[in-house]
Amino acid sequence: MFFQEPELQYEVTVEQPDPHFAKLLQQAIGGQEGEMRVAMQYMFQAWALPEEYEEYRTLLMETAAEELGHIEMLATAVTKNLRGSSAEMDDDARETAAAAASMTGQNPRQFLSAGQSAMPVDSNGVPFTGGYIAASGNLAGDLYANVMAEATGRTLATRLWEYTDDPGMKDMLSYLIARDTMHQNQWLQALETLDDPVPVPASFPQDQENQDFNYTFVSTRRETQPNPEYPWTQGETPDGNGQFSYAAEQSGDGNVVAPDPDPMTNNDPNRVAQSARSADSTDAEANSPSESADAADSSE
Amino acid sequence: MFFQEPELQYEVTVEQPDPHFAKLLQQAIGGQEGEMRVAMQYMFQAWALPEEYEEYRTLLMETAAEELGHIEMLATAVTKNLRGSSAEMDDDARETAAAAASMTGQNPRQFLSAGQSAMPVDSNGVPFTGGYIAASGNLAGDLYANVMAEATGRTLATRLWEYTDDPGMKDMLSYLIARDTMHQNQWLQALETLDDPVPVPASFPQDQENQDFNYTFVSTRRETQPNPEYPWTQGETPDGNGQFSYAAEQSGDGNVVAPDPDPMTNNDPNRVAQSARSADSTDAEANSPSESADAADSSE
Amino acid sequence: MFFQEPELQYEVTVEQPDPHFAKLLQQAIGGQEGEMRVAMQYMFQAWALPEEYEEYRTLLMETAAEELGHIEMLATAVTKNLRGSSAEMDDDARETAAAAASMTGQNPRQFLSAGQSAMPVDSNGVPFTGGYIAASGNLAGDLYANVMAEATGRTLATRLWEYTDDPGMKDMLSYLIARDTMHQNQWLQALETLDDPVPVPASFPQDQENQDFNYTFVSTRRETQPNPEYPWTQGETPDGNGQFSYAAEQSGDGNVVAPDPDPMTNNDPNRVAQSARSADSTDAEANSPSESADAADSSE
Amino acid sequence: MFFQEPELQYEVTVEQPDPHFAKLLQQAIGGQEGEMRVAMQYMFQAWALPEEYEEYRTLLMETAAEELGHIEMLATAVTKNLRGSSAEMDDDARETAAAAASMTGQNPRQFLSAGQSAMPVDSNGVPFTGGYIAASGNLAGDLYANVMAEATGRTLATRLWEYTDDPGMKDMLSYLIARDTMHQNQWLQALETLDDPVPVPASFPQDQENQDFNYTFVSTRRETQPNPEYPWTQGETPDGNGQFSYAAEQSGDGNVVAPDPDPMTNNDPNRVAQSARSADSTDAEANSPSESADAADSSE
Amino acid sequence: MFFQEPELQYEVTVEQPDPHFAKLLQQAIGGQEGEMRVAMQYMFQAWALPEEYEEYRTLLMETAAEELGHIEMLATAVTKNLRGSSAEMDDDARETAAAAASMTGQNPRQFLSAGQSAMPVDSNGVPFTGGYIAASGNLAGDLYANVMAEATGRTLATRLWEYTDDPGMKDMLSYLIARDTMHQNQWLQALETLDDPVPVPASFPQDQENQDFNYTFVSTRRETQPNPEYPWTQGETPDGNGQFSYAAEQSGDGNVVAPDPDPMTNNDPNRVAQSARSADSTDAEANSPSESADAADSSE
Amino acid sequence: MFFQEPELQYEVTVEQPDPHFAKLLQQAIGGQEGEMRVAMQYMFQAWALPEEYEEYRTLLMETAAEELGHIEMLATAVTKNLRGSSAEMDDDARETAAAAASMTGQNPRQFLSAGQSAMPVDSNGVPFTGGYIAASGNLAGDLYANVMAEATGRTLATRLWEYTDDPGMKDMLSYLIARDTMHQNQWLQALETLDDPVPVPASFPQDQENQDFNYTFVSTRRETQPNPEYPWTQGETPDGNGQFSYAAEQSGDGNVVAPDPDPMTNNDPNRVAQSARSADSTDAEANSPSESADAADSSE
Repeated sequence: MFFQEPELQYEVTVEQPDPHFAKLLQQAIGGQEGEMRVAMQYMFQAWALPEEYEEYRTLLMETAAEELGHIEMLATAVTKNLRGSSAEMDDDARETAAAAASMTGQNPRQFLSAGQSAMPVDSNGVPFTGGYIAASGNLAGDLYANVMAEATGRTLATRLWEYTDDPGMKDMLSYLIARDTMHQNQWLQALETLDDPVPVPASFPQDQENQDFNYTFVSTRRETQPNPEYPWTQGETPDGNGQFSYAAEQSGDGNVVAPDPDPMTNNDPNRVAQSARSADSTDAEANSPSESADAADSSE
Repeated sequence: MFFQEPELQYEVTVEQPDPHFAKLLQQAIGGQEGEMRVAMQYMFQAWALPEEYEEYRTLLMETAAEELGHIEMLATAVTKNLRGSSAEMDDDARETAAAAASMTGQNPRQFLSAGQSAMPVDSNGVPFTGGYIAASGNLAGDLYANVMAEATGRTLATRLWEYTDDPGMKDMLSYLIARDTMHQNQWLQALETLDDPVPVPASFPQDQENQDFNYTFVSTRRETQPNPEYPWTQGETPDGNGQFSYAAEQSGDGNVVAPDPDPMTNNDPNRVAQSARSADSTDAEANSPSESADAADSSE
Repeated sequence: MFFQEPELQYEVTVEQPDPHFAKLLQQAIGGQEGEMRVAMQYMFQAWALPEEYEEYRTLLMETAAEELGHIEMLATAVTKNLRGSSAEMDDDARETAAAAASMTGQNPRQFLSAGQSAMPVDSNGVPFTGGYIAASGNLAGDLYANVMAEATGRTLATRLWEYTDDPGMKDMLSYLIARDTMHQNQWLQALETLDDPVPVPASFPQDQENQDFNYTFVSTRRETQPNPEYPWTQGETPDGNGQFSYAAEQSGDGNVVAPDPDPMTNNDPNRVAQSARSADSTDAEANSPSESADAADSSE
Repeated sequence: MFFQEPELQYEVTVEQPDPHFAKLLQQAIGGQEGEMRVAMQYMFQAWALPEEYEEYRTLLMETAAEELGHIEMLATAVTKNLRGSSAEMDDDARETAAAAASMTGQNPRQFLSAGQSAMPVDSNGVPFTGGYIAASGNLAGDLYANVMAEATGRTLATRLWEYTDDPGMKDMLSYLIARDTMHQNQWLQALETLDDPVPVPASFPQDQENQDFNYTFVSTRRETQPNPEYPWTQGETPDGNGQFSYAAEQSGDGNVVAPDPDPMTNNDPNRVAQSARSADSTDAEANSPSESADAADSSE
Repeated sequence: MFFQEPELQYEVTVEQPDPHFAKLLQQAIGGQEGEMRVAMQYMFQAWALPEEYEEYRTLLMETAAEELGHIEMLATAVTKNLRGSSAEMDDDARETAAAAASMTGQNPRQFLSAGQSAMPVDSNGVPFTGGYIAASGNLAGDLYANVMAEATGRTLATRLWEYTDDPGMKDMLSYLIARDTMHQNQWLQALETLDDPVPVPASFPQDQENQDFNYTFVSTRRETQPNPEYPWTQGETPDGNGQFSYAAEQSGDGNVVAPDPDPMTNNDPNRVAQSARSADSTDAEANSPSESADAADSSE
Repeated sequence: MFFQEPELQYEVTVEQPDPHFAKLLQQAIGGQEGEMRVAMQYMFQAWALPEEYEEYRTLLMETAAEELGHIEMLATAVTKNLRGSSAEMDDDARETAAAAASMTGQNPRQFLSAGQSAMPVDSNGVPFTGGYIAASGNLAGDLYANVMAEATGRTLATRLWEYTDDPGMKDMLSYLIARDTMHQNQWLQALETLDDPVPVPASFPQDQENQDFNYTFVSTRRETQPNPEYPWTQGETPDGNGQFSYAAEQSGDGNVVAPDPDPMTNNDPNRVAQSARSADSTDAEANSPSESADAADSSE
């Protein structure tokens, strides 16, 4: 269960309000790389873990609670960038066309739908979706998902940092970037505590997978090429269970594949047998690209 | 540019058509863990890479082309499970209520929208979305995303394998599981060829991140707890740049955070100044939970 | 900022695991009427409130924290319904066709994507979306949104209660229904503490709205009908600012409305001026339904 | 069934075309607070009502028909703002970079996808979704949803009114704001005609809800606080069925909650029993954070 | 503007309620091929047409109004299939497990979210989206979109007709199928009244398109194949402006394509220049697949 | 199965990088009218075709492979417009506010999420969705969908062509427009090879559709109008099976339609029978608009 205190995890200040930056910050709230995603992702992963994984469950839930606080920090940053201070944007200023444009030229919904507030959407105004969340029930797979989430999250935060010159915003982002560093490291460390997770899922009996294709790089080039001798076409594999090899060509099964027709679906694109059928089929022959199509029609 | 041949990459057979399994297979086509996702993900990642990353670009594009072939195999598996062979499901059988239910009781759109064919949707019928695709422009982050995609993809394939008893389907899945093993290994190997990618993005100057919080596990427990001495609260960090430490408590900034009001948004929940204002405020006092709210109203 | 404890807000037990009920419970987690919606909705509403609304901000944030705990309770209920106890569903049983169907015949993604766990989706497997969240920046509007959210949420919970016979589930739902009762009451009470919120937004100067149509019921019946003398076609209005009246007919502006053409859009559906134009227009005259369309073409 | 006439419900004029305002207006067409939502919402609510609610059904359907006319007015306003009059924007002007930017710098799809026309999307270009529509089958809940929809809809309209200086647009919005005033009042009035709707659903036997928690405000503060004596922590409740009380702390169930493992899901993150198992577990002990995780592995 | 009457366009009866069919009918309401799509599509198309296309505008708007009535008929069919008559499903029956399953085993949200009513979703419960709607501003393109919408709509209706045995439902579908026949014909007829619409958009000056590729079928087979002499690789083209030809091979531009790097994005996957750089690069050489990657790193 | 070569199908050059145009180009990649849609649409259509339609299957798959190459060309165009050449945008320039705005003022996610690369989203940043894809299983319906897709796709490409002045971009678009011309023609030609496809689906026995309404234009005007004698209200129908006629009025079924109540849904909006019922009903009578509503309540 959850508790909350009416203070921020870390101070958020804005020296110079910037409505455009308020739009960009939304990516870190409701975007694919944002904090709503990781907060919920870590929770759902935790709730799937059985009792013997208590340490990991704790790790996930506590990090989730922290991420909730990051959403709050970013929402505060958005309102501060949108509303400004009374000194800087007085009523008169707001009524000028320029101010109006700065308010709505960005993410219009921050003004129209939310009255100059943060929203559960990304920097293009696309609503957050549960489709961003990865929680597979397999801890190793989930930890890779978390490394990836923190990697793209930290990349996003550094791009926001590159963009802004506001000292307050740079300080907040420096904090969030630091937390992403920590979280990348903690998920990598958690992966290392697992015996031997690769390939995920490790519990699947590997002798049941096709032994001819499980360590072979298959080239999809149009014409066959010699083995380029890359680290992924020769040498030992990272999971320690095989040797990379190289196939210059996809094997193929040699057959054109086509499903059977299904009479109940009205899939037939031509009109079916009628008294005037013979007349119709005369035209059809002139146009129809092959005999086989005609044959199909008449067989019904 | 792309080429295609009218044969499958690997043989797909179905001994006993199973419309319900046709529904489950959709997850591997248009689902969050499916092949449409990885095919497009690897392409978009490749298209972002500059010239000096030619080997990785090739690796990504060739794997993408292979994944397109996997969508094709799975689509074939879906139609074979839905339509059956003419011997097994003749016209009469299809017209029985039981057969009808088996056709529509699953994913109704496979029948209603697609005439017993595969669709670009997941096992619940939710359409594929570009929101599943991760392509950050940063190769290291993308490679972690790919390890994760193949990890959840292989987990999905093993669950489908556990579910089905059909020898043809088990064989196809054994092939796809093997390819996922290869792909996990190749992305991990590609990560190892990078100098020192962690934390992602590596090119951000790490001395610009907040040095007090970048290797510290912050507990979010309600009451402070002693350091549990987990591998992520002490010892060296996986990136080799720090030592894990433990903070028993979120620091907090000590302030209640509230944004400034914005007069142009009509955010004020009470009716504004009118001749009868004094009368209104009398009622308000009786109800309003605090003086501050009143003060705010009267200041307008 | 947020804290969490590794216990549930209220006990969750399942006597008889029911995979189908696990599917239905998803509606209360990631559905339009679910707990993810209200948890995030109350947070975003709180973050928009200026300092003078501190009491409401507290009310919103504390309720949000409680709702996070409800997601956790429901996720626990889902895993308990899916996985059962070791006594009831042993390995053998799971391998029978019946058990397999019960695992996958419901929401296949609970098995395929999440390994028999809760997901951020609704009872049809549709992912949660930020589009469900209402946070307008106007406290009165938001409070009505909250009454509505708790009304539809409680309705959902009572339908789940009607459906299940499991004593544990009935007890959990009885608790959640009680909380919804409280929350409906608290939002209604908060509305009553506002001076005079209707119509929302109250701060808009009402003399700026069209005075001929702001308290009139406009009938859209094809033929005019006498005033049916309903409570909304006569008598005082709930906001106390007017009298309901009745218009038997939409007034209409009397004009066909059509926009100007725009030459840069290639909107013209016919091929434009060419040497063979005169010949073409002969055919056109035979087909074209009116002179005006021709005139338009030739004027270009 | 529906009829339509080729005139607008109310006149729509634009003195000075403003492509940016055309973008903002989309929020009132296809947005969460827009007219497509209410038009369809009122219809679906009406279609669910049994015969004894004929008056409400009529009320809903007639209002729905009116809202369809509002979509039409707004679509007209969009095209007028985008295409301008022939006098103001001639062909030459359109070809300048400035004009091109004004056409595409806003919502590019209004130009690219719709040839300078209105679209079924919101002000950020996000398509309208049925997920915005609330129709619960319970009239009281639906009426609260309608009050809320008209409250956020009117708030949106007032913000558009604040933004524009165009007399034609201000006049159209003044009309739409007036209609929203009427509709808020009519839904509130309809609620008042119900006997005793709170809590929704009223038909659920209230003695079946948990009597310890149905009128208690539960604080989620980290440390217990005294009763703040707000209107929602003491006094009579708006439904007239109870007294508000205050709980300084969430009770909690005292247990860590964790689901059972499920062997068929391949959830186990470590490689399963092999001949080299003993050797592996030696490494594992060095890394694994606890004995319990090991125990779980070896039990398989 | 719109009017409505409280009767259906065509009678809707259900002899034997069938909750499963109620689920299937949703596809025709809120699905990609459904009536919500065409109703809104025809409106948005109409609103884009200038004055000279008045006949088409009328055609579109009147058909739109008819389609609104079809949504109403289908919603009625859904409630009749779900709720049954009091004779057939009394209270006792509903409380049996079987009845409960029949109510919720289908689209759970029809019960949980809508109280056994129709919803703005498809047969899988996926909400209707504005993304289904095509309204391009170009009348010819729109008319093809309408032929296609009625073609897939009629196909859907015939599949529903094949599925059901209920005489009332078959009669309603026979009516809707007839209307789809009419609508396909009217859109095709409207296309024929246009002078010369192909290729769409006709107003684009065709001499500006690349003259080497506008009537050539380009084979994407891996190995070049002789001209198969299909109707689309030889002979006159349907637009009457060219002759089909055949290219056995994609030409290709002969270059590997790679974008320039961008220093502000933190795209570089390796850690950037540091004092320990020389040491790092030693390791890198051992792993990195090529010199070019190293060169890129050191150039920064 | 698929193959790819590391060169583009056609050369892509950009003389003057234009970040705003990079945003517009996204519509042709991940938009409703874009190349991701047609590439996947043609594949799914092909995979549904039985063996006798081999020529059409080949036609669809080869065109799909070509469209994959178009996505690649457009992605290349996006990165070239975003990143520019090193000569034009050096590091200093990028750091100016103007450059920063040009990078993020457009589609922020191209910078924030993708590091100045193409994305699987449209020009407003809305992710690609499988909901755009039409593949009905009926070849004739699918071919109309393809004509429509190429019609709206070509319209989009011509609007992009109108917008840009860059010679490289105009050349690329001239190529894509030419391909769209070819593809419109090939789909129309393929339709002509079918015997008699209209109305779609042709295989449905047309004597089963309601014969009174299948060739009648039904006016939805409020007051009856005389037959306007348009080509779609008189004369032969395009399918050659009937004569257009005109109905001045929707017939209607003469009944108000309302579903039965369902006791298990808690749909009743009033509190149910209690000891204090008589007292309640007194109030109710004063407010309730009709006797019938009361009657319904008391009957429970």
